[in-house]
Amino acid sequence: MELGQGSSKNGAMQVEQVLFMNGGEGDNSYANNSAPSREATLKTKPLLHESLFDLYCNGFPDCIRFTDMGCSSGPNAFLPTLQVIEALDTICSRLKHKPPILHAFLNDLPGNDFNTVSKSLPSFYERLKTERGHDDFGSCFIAAAPGSFHGRLFPPCFLNLVYSSFCLHWLSRMPKELVSECGIPLLNKRDVCVAKTCSPFSVHKAYLDQFEIDFTSFLKFRSEELKTEGRMVLNFIGNDKYHTGVFELMGMVLNDMVYEGLIEVSKLESFHFPMYNPCVEEVRQVIEREGSFNIHQLETSHISWSVGYENNNKGLELNAHARAKNVADNIRAVSESLLANHFGSAIMDDLFHRFTIKISAHLEMGLGAYTVLFIYLIKK
Amino acid sequence: MELGQGSSKNGAMQVEQVLFMNGGEGDNSYANNSAPSREATLKTKPLLHESLFDLYCNGFPDCIRFTDMGCSSGPNAFLPTLQVIEALDTICSRLKHKPPILHAFLNDLPGNDFNTVSKSLPSFYERLKTERGHDDFGSCFIAAAPGSFHGRLFPPCFLNLVYSSFCLHWLSRMPKELVSECGIPLLNKRDVCVAKTCSPFSVHKAYLDQFEIDFTSFLKFRSEELKTEGRMVLNFIGNDKYHTGVFELMGMVLNDMVYEGLIEVSKLESFHFPMYNPCVEEVRQVIEREGSFNIHQLETSHISWSVGYENNNKGLELNAHARAKNVADNIRAVSESLLANHFGSAIMDDLFHRFTIKISAHLEMGLGAYTVLFIYLIKK
Repeated sequence: MELGQGSSKNGAMQVEQVLFMNGGEGDNSYANNSAPSREATLKTKPLLHESLFDLYCNGFPDCIRFTDMGCSSGPNAFLPTLQVIEALDTICSRLKHKPPILHAFLNDLPGNDFNTVSKSLPSFYERLKTERGHDDFGSCFIAAAPGSFHGRLFPPCFLNLVYSSFCLHWLSRMPKELVSECGIPLLNKRDVCVAKTCSPFSVHKAYLDQFEIDFTSFLKFRSEELKTEGRMVLNFIGNDKYHTGVFELMGMVLNDMVYEGLIEVSKLESFHFPMYNPCVEEVRQVIEREGSFNIHQLETSHISWSVGYENNNKGLELNAHARAKNVADNIRAVSESLLANHFGSAIMDDLFHRFTIKISAHLEMGLGAYTVLFIYLIKK
Repeated sequence: MELGQGSSKNGAMQVEQVLFMNGGEGDNSYANNSAPSREATLKTKPLLHESLFDLYCNGFPDCIRFTDMGCSSGPNAFLPTLQVIEALDTICSRLKHKPPILHAFLNDLPGNDFNTVSKSLPSFYERLKTERGHDDFGSCFIAAAPGSFHGRLFPPCFLNLVYSSFCLHWLSRMPKELVSECGIPLLNKRDVCVAKTCSPFSVHKAYLDQFEIDFTSFLKFRSEELKTEGRMVLNFIGNDKYHTGVFELMGMVLNDMVYEGLIEVSKLESFHFPMYNPCVEEVRQVIEREGSFNIHQLETSHISWSVGYENNNKGLELNAHARAKNVADNIRAVSESLLANHFGSAIMDDLFHRFTIKISAHLEMGLGAYTVLFIYLIKK
């Protein structure tokens, strides 16, 4: 998970310093609660395969340079790299070519747990050797590239393929219109994100403006780093008319806790998730306006909030509370650092217990899915 | 500090798994006890400058790819990269050229503390900006390349410059002649390294053979990774006729402790430092036999064992015990993991206390310096 530098002069939190995935391997860890992100990566496989086929057949390069932006450090960290290797093996086996060397760069913020990534490398190479018949070395070289993808990370025209999964919905900073220079809440006082049903237009615009700034700079920097006709394959959480965002439910829970006197009203009014879920048209406009890429594909699909629970209980009758607990655990793994930093750790268990009940009611109505954008771009 | 994979089938320790620099920032940490390594890096500056001048003037590349092999994670981790930047700035200022982009790869074993390296990156970039007037980004990109330099780490013909400081005297494994398949000591029973005064020829040969294997493979792999006419600048601890190695003194202390019944004799007989300090001619022969590089420079210099203490007490009268304590602390930072793994942690304080006294006596005789080899090679 990656997030840009929050240069918040207005007294709001420094996003880069307070947002991180829950570490370790416990019940609340990201390692054990990243099923939706994994599902998004698995669903991106056909696009990744297509981009690699196009890339490879466009000159049969000896070496392909690839980066996964926002790799995190759990079991998903090597999944995109493995998918790229599998795709190249398949493509080259069909073409009767020797697969190109893969030079992969795992990127995330400097605070990411790169030690775990680094210590997992020998077993990953071993797995390539035993499962895929790769040589001891010579076919795949993996490095870590720590830094924010809201800045430059690689020399010009260095990369062939940029990939990012489940990251670009996080903003680099709080929209500056939400809180004054001296920290006084201005807009969206009781909501913690864009709430579809009740946020005023000004709030939506503030979030959209920040998304446009962040996504434009992401496209600009990546276009500098990619070779001509380099490929970019992305997925992140978007938005459609029909689905309520899971963070909207979190906003309702926080409001309930203010009503019950468990959270001070001023605390709630100064908290906002640095996250925006754009719709397809908003994304298309930013890409076209920025101008460095042609859109080869831009579509949405849905991933159940409780995909982890569903995958673990295939063929069994699904229990709404257990599903809701799974969703709450996933959200806790990615948002606890932000929430605990602002509201204190003491209320986290109560908050996520209430959140589970709120999600359960939502799931019982047959609702609960992420709208995910799947994007394939080609550098002009 | 870097060390290759110890594939010891003969029951000896897995070197890669048990050798690491003492972590943290305490009295015994590598961070506070790496002055000799820092001094070696500082002394290598003229060679590094010369290699970069030759490299840059040989085609004025837009981007120079550099790796520091065995970067560790203390305050020395960024020093070679900074020296490369300073050299390129000086060279290009003289030539009135815009300095090339530097793409630097910090390498060490997967167990190295890359989190500390990664978290230090933003302040390093900030320092470049404030002290050297570098842009926010665009002039220097730093990545981590975890892995053993006794294997391949980069795609073919990728690098312009390989650098390594104070690492190549460590062997990838114990010389196999020292201990039998089932762990029975065969040679060098009471010595823990090649002791100049008393080790038989067979022991010297066993160590030298392992050094030749390791250094040959290092040269071969680096030549595959370097572009034609790529440069390699190395320093590591060598040997001459006049200087006693500091680990010889450690061997004497361990023998004393066996004599006093504090260490079992079998424990001592099965322990050997995976380290060899070659003389200039031995190094020259390996380079010439391997055949990938021309020797541009190969010379020795000396670095006082207590260089850290001397630098911190310039102009003051030097105290032999304090100097000895400084040397013992440096050696503890790099060897405690090996010694504690074999002899147990309980005797470490006693061992290093005795070691300090032994070193003090040696220093009072006016002795105590590392013979360091400084090498500049050009790929054929």
